[in-house]
Amino acid sequence: MVRTILVLGAGKSTSYLLDYLLKKSREENLHLVIGDLHPENIPQDIASHQNCSIITLDIFNDEDRRKAIDSASIVVSMLPPRLHIKIAEDCIHFKKHLVTASYVSNEIQELDNDAKKNGLVFMNEIGLDPGIDHMSAMEVIDRIRDKGGKILLFESFTGGLVAPEHDSNLWSYKFTWNPRNVVVAGQGGAAKFIQEGAYKYIPYQKLFRRTELLDIEGYGSFEVYPNRDSLKYREAYGLQDSLTLYRGTMRRVGFSKAWQMFVILGMTDDSYVIENSEGMSYRQFVNQFLPYSPTDSVELKLRHYLKIDQDDIRWGKLMELNLFDDSKTIPLKNATPAQMLQYILEDSWTLEKDEKDMIVMYHKFGYEIDGKKKQIDANMVVLGENQTYTAMSKTVGLPVAMATLQILNKKITTPGVQIPISKEVYGPILSELKSYGINFREYEVPYLGYNPDSIGS
Amino acid sequence: MVRTILVLGAGKSTSYLLDYLLKKSREENLHLVIGDLHPENIPQDIASHQNCSIITLDIFNDEDRRKAIDSASIVVSMLPPRLHIKIAEDCIHFKKHLVTASYVSNEIQELDNDAKKNGLVFMNEIGLDPGIDHMSAMEVIDRIRDKGGKILLFESFTGGLVAPEHDSNLWSYKFTWNPRNVVVAGQGGAAKFIQEGAYKYIPYQKLFRRTELLDIEGYGSFEVYPNRDSLKYREAYGLQDSLTLYRGTMRRVGFSKAWQMFVILGMTDDSYVIENSEGMSYRQFVNQFLPYSPTDSVELKLRHYLKIDQDDIRWGKLMELNLFDDSKTIPLKNATPAQMLQYILEDSWTLEKDEKDMIVMYHKFGYEIDGKKKQIDANMVVLGENQTYTAMSKTVGLPVAMATLQILNKKITTPGVQIPISKEVYGPILSELKSYGINFREYEVPYLGYNPDSIGS
Repeated sequence: MVRTILVLGAGKSTSYLLDYLLKKSREENLHLVIGDLHPENIPQDIASHQNCSIITLDIFNDEDRRKAIDSASIVVSMLPPRLHIKIAEDCIHFKKHLVTASYVSNEIQELDNDAKKNGLVFMNEIGLDPGIDHMSAMEVIDRIRDKGGKILLFESFTGGLVAPEHDSNLWSYKFTWNPRNVVVAGQGGAAKFIQEGAYKYIPYQKLFRRTELLDIEGYGSFEVYPNRDSLKYREAYGLQDSLTLYRGTMRRVGFSKAWQMFVILGMTDDSYVIENSEGMSYRQFVNQFLPYSPTDSVELKLRHYLKIDQDDIRWGKLMELNLFDDSKTIPLKNATPAQMLQYILEDSWTLEKDEKDMIVMYHKFGYEIDGKKKQIDANMVVLGENQTYTAMSKTVGLPVAMATLQILNKKITTPGVQIPISKEVYGPILSELKSYGINFREYEVPYLGYNPDSIGS
Repeated sequence: MVRTILVLGAGKSTSYLLDYLLKKSREENLHLVIGDLHPENIPQDIASHQNCSIITLDIFNDEDRRKAIDSASIVVSMLPPRLHIKIAEDCIHFKKHLVTASYVSNEIQELDNDAKKNGLVFMNEIGLDPGIDHMSAMEVIDRIRDKGGKILLFESFTGGLVAPEHDSNLWSYKFTWNPRNVVVAGQGGAAKFIQEGAYKYIPYQKLFRRTELLDIEGYGSFEVYPNRDSLKYREAYGLQDSLTLYRGTMRRVGFSKAWQMFVILGMTDDSYVIENSEGMSYRQFVNQFLPYSPTDSVELKLRHYLKIDQDDIRWGKLMELNLFDDSKTIPLKNATPAQMLQYILEDSWTLEKDEKDMIVMYHKFGYEIDGKKKQIDANMVVLGENQTYTAMSKTVGLPVAMATLQILNKKITTPGVQIPISKEVYGPILSELKSYGINFREYEVPYLGYNPDSIGS
C-alpha cells in the first residue's frame, strides 16, 4: 500500500529532504505530496518525479489544508513555526503523525495529551539545531551514563558559516540562513548559564565579549558567544546535577569582537523605527549613532567613539562593508536600525552562486567515572555542495526525512509531542546520517573543565 | 465662603505644599482636607492646624473617595501617577478642578473634552521636572519670540543631587528621590534627540558615555546624560523648527562614567529574576556577572573585564559601595539585578538626618534675531533646609500649591487637560517662586551651538 507523505512548505531547507524521500519512494512505496503557496519554485526534477505530486496550498485556507492532511499518512511541516499549530490541530483531528524541525511552542506542547491518546508521534526539533545537537549529545551522554559515569559539564555549540574555500571576507562570515536571526541574535534578555555550579548572567551589551575559543582539527579556530537559553534542555537531558551547562553560537575568531561595534553603536536595535529611513545613505545611517560635529568626519568620530585605531582589523571590517559610503542608500521605509543594518550586511555577506556553506557543531562532555574526571570533545563539520544542496539544508532536511520514514515504518512509535532525545529515535537516525557524511569525531581530552587543581598558578 | 482644598497623598513631597496652603488659609479663606491611607505620618503641626482636617482614605474605596471629592472645591493629587485616573474621572463627575505634578497619561488626556465642557482646569506637570522646567523654559522662549527671535537650539537639564556641603562620597551622589528611577534610568529604548537638524540615537549601552559638561557659577561642574524623550515637548513648546533639541539629567562629573560599569555588567537589568537572590552576598551578586575562574579573585576579574586599573577613580567608587564584601547580604526574594543593585546603593547613598539635598536646572536657548545668532543660558540652584524641607519637596510642592490657589482665585481659568506652558500660568507662578528663592540666573553667552564657523580648526 502506498503511503502518502504530505510536505508543507518547499523552501530553502527542503532539497535534501525531498530528494531523500523520493529516492526511497520506490522501495518504500511512498508518494510525496508537496503543498506550497508558490509551487512554481519547486525544481523541475522533483516536480516531475513519478512519485511526487504538487498542490498549490494556502495554509490559511482551512478546507484545502484539511483535505490535504486528511489524505496523507504523515505530515511534515517545513513552514515558519507560527504556522505549525493549525496543522498540528488538524493532525490530531485526522489522526496523522507530524514532523517538524522547529522548537516546541507552548501551544504545540499543549497537544501532548491528545497526541498520546491517539497514538500519534509529534516529532519536533529534528533538524540541525535543534535536532542533530539533541541527538548527538544524548548519544554520548547516554553512553557515559551506561558505563556509570556522571556528567559534570556539558557545552554545546553550533554555527552556520561559509566553507573555508569561500571564506573570502574579513569577517569570515556570509549569510547562509535567515539574516534577521543573525542581526537580532542575543536580544531580549540576559544570557543565563551555569559554570561550576554558579549561575552566570551576561547582558546583551557584553554578550559578544564573553567568547570562548575552540579548535577543530583541519578547520582551524572558532569562537563561541553564549546563547540566551543554556538551561533550556537541562531537564530534558537529565542534567539537573551538571555543574556546568553552556550553549553557544560558533563563529570564526574575531567576528564577535567586531560585531560588538554594532551592538555598542545601537545598530542592532529592533525596537524602534528610524526617522526618514527610506533613501538614507549608509554613511548617514552610521552618523545617526554618533555625536554631532561640524568639523569631524564620520570616520574619525566612530573610531574615537569605539576607541579603535586605523590599523585595527575591526576598522578594516567596517570599511569592507562600505559603511561610510554616501552614495549607497537603504531603500527601506520605516525601518528599524536592525533592518537597516541587515540590508547593509546582505549587500556584502551574500553567498555567490558558486559558493558553499559549512555547518560546524562542537560538544564538550565532562564526566566523572570511577573517581576520575574525564572529558570527551566531539565535533562535526558538514560542507555544502552548492547553493541548492547546502550544508544547512542537508543537516536540517535529512534528519526530518529519516524520522518521517522511521515513523511511517513504525520504528519510532512512542506517541506524544517530543524532541529526539531517546535512543529509539537518535540511534537509527545518527547511524544513517553517517552514511551521508554527517558524523562526529570524538576526542578524549584531559578534563580541564574549571577545575582549580589542573590550572597553573 | 471657605474653599475646601482636598490634597490626596501626604508623602515626601508635600511639606512645602501643605505649609504654603495652610499659611494662606486665613487670608484666603481656605480649608485643607488631607486624605491619606496612613494619616498617622502627617506631622503634628500640620494635623493640628485649625484650617486643616485629616481623613483616612483608601483611594480604592469608591464611596469614600467620591464623598471627599464631592465636598472639595478643588482636588490636588500627590498620589502615584497610576492612581490619578480614578480621581480625575470623579473630578469630571463632581465638576472639580484638578492639580497634579505628574506627566499627562493617555487616559488623563482623553478627559480633555470633558474637562473643557465643564469649564474645569486639569493642571498637570506642575512640579519640578516636569513643572518648573516647562515654565522657566517657556518664559524665555516667549520673551525671545516676542522680540522677533527664532529659536535654533533648546537644551534642558535637571538633577536632584546632594548639597555641596554634604557631598561626601566619591560618586557625589545620594538618593534624594525615588531610588528605583535612578537605577532603571534610560532603559526601555534608545534615546532620541536632534542636533543641528539631524536625528541622533543613543542605545542604553552608550547612554552614560555621551555626557555633556556644564558649569554653574559658584557650584562647579556638572555633567548631563541624555533623557530618552528629548522630542517630547517639541510641539507643545512650538519648537518644530528648532535645529537642536536635547534634554538630559544632571549629575556631578564622573558619575555617569562610573555608572556605566553597572550598565555593562548587567546590574541595572530589571527584566529577569536572579536565582537564589535572597541572602546573596554583595560579592556573590557581583560575581554572577563575571566569568567563572577557580583562581582569580572577583576583584581582579572585574577590573580586567571592565579594563580599569586599581588607581582608577571608578575602582574607588566600587570599593566605597562595599561591592566585594562577602559578609553583607541582600535580603530580597526573587529580585531582579536592578532591585539588588538598588539595595546595595541605598546602603551607601542614603541622606543622613542632617544632610541637605540640592536641585539644579540648566537651560540653553540658542536663537537668531536680526540676522545674529545669540544664546541665553539660564540656571537654577535650590538647596534643601533639612530632611523634611528638602529642595525636592520645595520645587515640586510650591508650584502645585500656587497653581491650586490661582485656579481657586480664577487667575488661571483656561479649561482642559494642560501643562504649564502659557503665560497665564507661568507668569504669576514664576514670579511668586522668586520670593521663595526659586529663581533663574540668566547669562548671555556667545552662540557656540554647533556652528562650524565658531569652532577652531
